[in-house]
Amino acid sequence: MTDFRTTRARFRLPDGTIYLDGNSLGPLPVAALDRVGRMMAEEWGQQLIRGWNTAGWMTQPRRTGDRIGNLIGAPAGYVVVGDTLSIKVYQALAAALELNPTRRVILSDSGNFPSDLYMADGLIRSLGRDHVLEVVEPEAVEAAIDDSVAVLLLTEVDYRTGRLHDMAALTRKAHAAGALAVWDLAHSAGAIPVDLAGADADFAVGCTYKYLNGGPGAPAFIYVAPRLADRVRPALSGWMGHQSPFAFNLDYRPGHGIERMRVGTPPVIALAALDAALDVWDGVSLAEVRAASLALSELFIREVEARCPDLVLASPRDGARRGSQVSFRHPDGYAMMQALIAQGVIGDFRAPDVMRFGFTPLYIGEHDVKAAVAILDDIVSHRRWDQPAFHARALVT
Amino acid sequence: MTDFRTTRARFRLPDGTIYLDGNSLGPLPVAALDRVGRMMAEEWGQQLIRGWNTAGWMTQPRRTGDRIGNLIGAPAGYVVVGDTLSIKVYQALAAALELNPTRRVILSDSGNFPSDLYMADGLIRSLGRDHVLEVVEPEAVEAAIDDSVAVLLLTEVDYRTGRLHDMAALTRKAHAAGALAVWDLAHSAGAIPVDLAGADADFAVGCTYKYLNGGPGAPAFIYVAPRLADRVRPALSGWMGHQSPFAFNLDYRPGHGIERMRVGTPPVIALAALDAALDVWDGVSLAEVRAASLALSELFIREVEARCPDLVLASPRDGARRGSQVSFRHPDGYAMMQALIAQGVIGDFRAPDVMRFGFTPLYIGEHDVKAAVAILDDIVSHRRWDQPAFHARALVT
Repeated sequence: MTDFRTTRARFRLPDGTIYLDGNSLGPLPVAALDRVGRMMAEEWGQQLIRGWNTAGWMTQPRRTGDRIGNLIGAPAGYVVVGDTLSIKVYQALAAALELNPTRRVILSDSGNFPSDLYMADGLIRSLGRDHVLEVVEPEAVEAAIDDSVAVLLLTEVDYRTGRLHDMAALTRKAHAAGALAVWDLAHSAGAIPVDLAGADADFAVGCTYKYLNGGPGAPAFIYVAPRLADRVRPALSGWMGHQSPFAFNLDYRPGHGIERMRVGTPPVIALAALDAALDVWDGVSLAEVRAASLALSELFIREVEARCPDLVLASPRDGARRGSQVSFRHPDGYAMMQALIAQGVIGDFRAPDVMRFGFTPLYIGEHDVKAAVAILDDIVSHRRWDQPAFHARALVT
Repeated sequence: MTDFRTTRARFRLPDGTIYLDGNSLGPLPVAALDRVGRMMAEEWGQQLIRGWNTAGWMTQPRRTGDRIGNLIGAPAGYVVVGDTLSIKVYQALAAALELNPTRRVILSDSGNFPSDLYMADGLIRSLGRDHVLEVVEPEAVEAAIDDSVAVLLLTEVDYRTGRLHDMAALTRKAHAAGALAVWDLAHSAGAIPVDLAGADADFAVGCTYKYLNGGPGAPAFIYVAPRLADRVRPALSGWMGHQSPFAFNLDYRPGHGIERMRVGTPPVIALAALDAALDVWDGVSLAEVRAASLALSELFIREVEARCPDLVLASPRDGARRGSQVSFRHPDGYAMMQALIAQGVIGDFRAPDVMRFGFTPLYIGEHDVKAAVAILDDIVSHRRWDQPAFHARALVT
């Protein structure tokens, strides 16, 4: 049984803050702060270059990858950590396209995170072989899967609305049509139970700075299905993915399985933070996290709709079709969110009018949800958001 | 006048260690340890998601890039930090090839770091348009530049021997032949004066964990010449390189100038370490660092040749043709290096027989060099390296 009081104590959260933005950046785990300090002082500072062997820096991307694999239904040995999510999307997509060389369509949806679409566009232009990125509405994806599709490229949970795709069903349909499926788990890993092996996904990628609490810009991960891991050609064929990086051969030979998806020198400091952040999951059941998150989300929806009728639910009402966040639309959502943040309720905003609230039971409880709604109600009913300071746009929204 | 006692005090080096491996991994700057602790506790921990604006995380890659630009002769605004060096090589090479669309040859040399060649090979295979990677001996590069060459891809300082290419002359010859030049500064930045603008280099890339002391796996950098920065198409077109990342448009539009070479979410913790590490350079003259490094290197060569005649100099004897490291060959170089390390003299080894020693006056002085040679002499003359333990190969050599 997951004890959410224990998990909350593992985070350092500022007093007076209700943090409903773990879907954008998870808060600081105490263990990450401690571990990075030790890693820098004792490993880097004392072991210096020897740390690559003696502190296990070189193998960390695989070990941390396996810990993430446990949370997303991947068998051990098929997840590796490194780079950014955009880079991992590129690797997965480039490899998937080569496995389906006679087809030209990449099918995605308008709910995908834009960077995934941008990376696909960049890859297509480099390839110069008439590939097409077809972007349909999320609801139209299933019907659009036909035998022209080379690769289905989707984010499981919509970053704006929390809408959840049916990974198993869409992957099944893709395979039946002769397509491969690449899943972006940015808003899934650590938020909801994921079963990559059960869904028979071909590739999956994700970031670790949201529900996995690895810190701002924490490294990404990539999964390649066991049946493909030794077959894929790595487009980004860096030395860390080489069969023998320290032989310094002039010719590239891909490493065994998932190793070939490594590219450059691993980001050791960031990996230390991430690996320590994953300690939070020891003894935690994702099914219980999911159930608690849905209960918090439903409480929030019920309360907001009762008290703030101007706000329009942008997320699916059915919890089974939603990830771990709830979004509401309002034409002045940006200013409203700034007013909320000024009062210690931190969510975020996505253009043009979406306010996002993440419900992460690892550190958020029922009392937080009720307190957040009370503040939101006060802001909305008294139009406290209607001040010039709250309309001023920041660089990052 | 650079005060090398002051710079040495800025590093935390273990007692009893003579660290001659800053060419592989720079030691821990005290400021980096302090800054990362503060960044994590105060920025991430307290500001949470707001840190992207309030702590300047979003603009850090450019600000840190400009500080590196100062050390490599780049004008402000044309260097950005992120990803790994292998990824930055890919970006530069992909962009350069597109600027020279009628040609098919990438010219490089066997002294280039293998990962650069691997990335070129991976790119060529993806493009599928008959590009050829031509790898010649370092001494044959100049003669091999002809009007078939699209891009010259070189590492300025050879990672094994320290041999230094003439960047200005080779770039001039490349331009005269209608080719572009991509320079890898992995062993140059912070080691020797570099003048990218003066040499009229088209692209440059480099890592920051060697002479810039950013920590293991610290992020890389890329430079694009001002005359090209707004013309290049980014092959890795991630959201951070988009003109308006937070508009979340579905279509990619490249950002202004060097911004388009950003890819994914910046690695904030690693950037904090790197940015603090660069404080070491405040008040330091690279010309003085270079002069001091040459003096130390020459002392080392002279002493080793006098006392250990079995060791064969693998580096150019002329300091003007050498970077900041000195290499010696010996058939048992691997075991010899392990024996040195066991006695606190840390250099490293590159297959098949090269022992590398870096001379970084920021934290290494004449007494260190003399002490290191005395230990080396003792090991060689008494064959202290000839023990099974010193022959056992580690994962990372």
